[in-house]
Amino acid sequence: MKLLRFGPKGQEKPGLIDKDGTIRDLSAYITDVNGDALSTEVLNKLQTIDPNTLPEVDENTRIGPCVGNVGKFLCVGLNYSDHAKESGMALPKEPEIFTKATSAISGPNDNIIKPKNSDKLDWEVELAIIIGKEAKYVDEVDAEDHIAGYCVCNDVSERTFQLEKGSQWDKGKGCDTFGPIGPWLVTKDEVKDVLNLKMWLKVNGKTFQNGNSNTMVFKPAYIVSYLSQFMSLQPGDVITTGTPPGVGLGQTPPHYLNSGDKIELGIEGLGTQSQTVCDYKSSTNAITHKELETVTE
Amino acid sequence: MKLLRFGPKGQEKPGLIDKDGTIRDLSAYITDVNGDALSTEVLNKLQTIDPNTLPEVDENTRIGPCVGNVGKFLCVGLNYSDHAKESGMALPKEPEIFTKATSAISGPNDNIIKPKNSDKLDWEVELAIIIGKEAKYVDEVDAEDHIAGYCVCNDVSERTFQLEKGSQWDKGKGCDTFGPIGPWLVTKDEVKDVLNLKMWLKVNGKTFQNGNSNTMVFKPAYIVSYLSQFMSLQPGDVITTGTPPGVGLGQTPPHYLNSGDKIELGIEGLGTQSQTVCDYKSSTNAITHKELETVTE
Repeated sequence: MKLLRFGPKGQEKPGLIDKDGTIRDLSAYITDVNGDALSTEVLNKLQTIDPNTLPEVDENTRIGPCVGNVGKFLCVGLNYSDHAKESGMALPKEPEIFTKATSAISGPNDNIIKPKNSDKLDWEVELAIIIGKEAKYVDEVDAEDHIAGYCVCNDVSERTFQLEKGSQWDKGKGCDTFGPIGPWLVTKDEVKDVLNLKMWLKVNGKTFQNGNSNTMVFKPAYIVSYLSQFMSLQPGDVITTGTPPGVGLGQTPPHYLNSGDKIELGIEGLGTQSQTVCDYKSSTNAITHKELETVTE
Repeated sequence: MKLLRFGPKGQEKPGLIDKDGTIRDLSAYITDVNGDALSTEVLNKLQTIDPNTLPEVDENTRIGPCVGNVGKFLCVGLNYSDHAKESGMALPKEPEIFTKATSAISGPNDNIIKPKNSDKLDWEVELAIIIGKEAKYVDEVDAEDHIAGYCVCNDVSERTFQLEKGSQWDKGKGCDTFGPIGPWLVTKDEVKDVLNLKMWLKVNGKTFQNGNSNTMVFKPAYIVSYLSQFMSLQPGDVITTGTPPGVGLGQTPPHYLNSGDKIELGIEGLGTQSQTVCDYKSSTNAITHKELETVTE
């Protein structure tokens, strides 16, 4: 299943995408696509619904972040060897963990706000894990039981805030709109091989990232197991797993985002995102589902 | 007002402490002490209630974390000059920001779980700010308008996880039970001078921390203003502001916590906490409000 949330910001309703690409309203079955809806039991029940029996949703509706009420938004840094190299950083011996503020979460096609005083606004296409079942001291071999599915995440980053204002990165990772997730949460049964998915990102039509999840250093099951040794993970938690090479920081010379720039990104089988960068004084109107169909992988 | 939350974990009800130290049930007026209850409007309305008209709560009731549904739990590192020195770290030029997982939040007297593989479990008595009104690009002079009140926080830390497993600290800060907050949220009108509060922490009866908020480097109003330049702050967000000297890491030789150790801590006017360290295999039973009365400042 491809689960999603649609409607105005803060008022999103649960839905799914049927095989024809039409959004269907799931409100009669679940109140939201959140931790409560991501257990195997609920997902199995949703699987039995014939999508044709669900109300169609206007294709001009905004798509929201694919998970609601996220408790934790954790991130693995430098998890692709080539990206660590372009960042001028050593490959970590164990996963480098930092946090994105949950207030940074936005819809896949919402504008990205360039913060006040930002001069190094950057992109990172990433594969995100969504937790479906509490995980505490979970072994790697059992970790997949705790994963509900996967989604695309743009781990938007402000490099001055992240790297030039102290040793800790969170300041440059948690700005408002720095966490577009979606368009949909693809349940794990629909992801044939999470370790072999093409990942790409374009800015103004030019391809900057063109990678594959097969070059990830620490794999999703390991990451879930590893994190669960430090803190319990709850259903609805999102863990984004690092980016392949090609970020702005890694260009010669570095290439950063400005107002008006258009970012398109996607992961094979997980859908695409399209964001326009706007100034912090501007609003955050998203493009619609219909307009999104013109974005090609 | 001194607002608090009481009852079993995950089922806390809102309350207040009256002038005689009795817990009174506020359920008839608010559903929880969370972001929705912390606006000036709601707090002003609560101020008009005669506590004697509110139901008394059994003094053996568990006290929960003083704020519910926390969206962000942000932390300022190395914010007391002497603590930076004892940690062997330079005093930051601007606030060093990291994140505690919201799943780490626990009641003020709940047990602290020593995680599996923990060998450097440490304490940090801290003054925490609770946000009452959304803050986005707020000037320092206006920042207090966005603060609902203050509470005691023990920024429990695992130094091996924090400092020896990569460059980012969040792994050693967000373990379950690493964020006791409370016993109560003291509204700012009741805190005479937040910049001059005694802060103390004892382990097994021995005083390790004996500081004062007057040696804070970056003050609460500055911190709120500063953070709001990077990310918006929402009502109910908690920001803990750093610890004075005397943590375990700073002792010669370093002194860390083990199962059975008892921690008592408090801040002048903000109440006290009392925690027992237990092994990760044990449960997290808290001592009751009545037992807490035997803790002395």
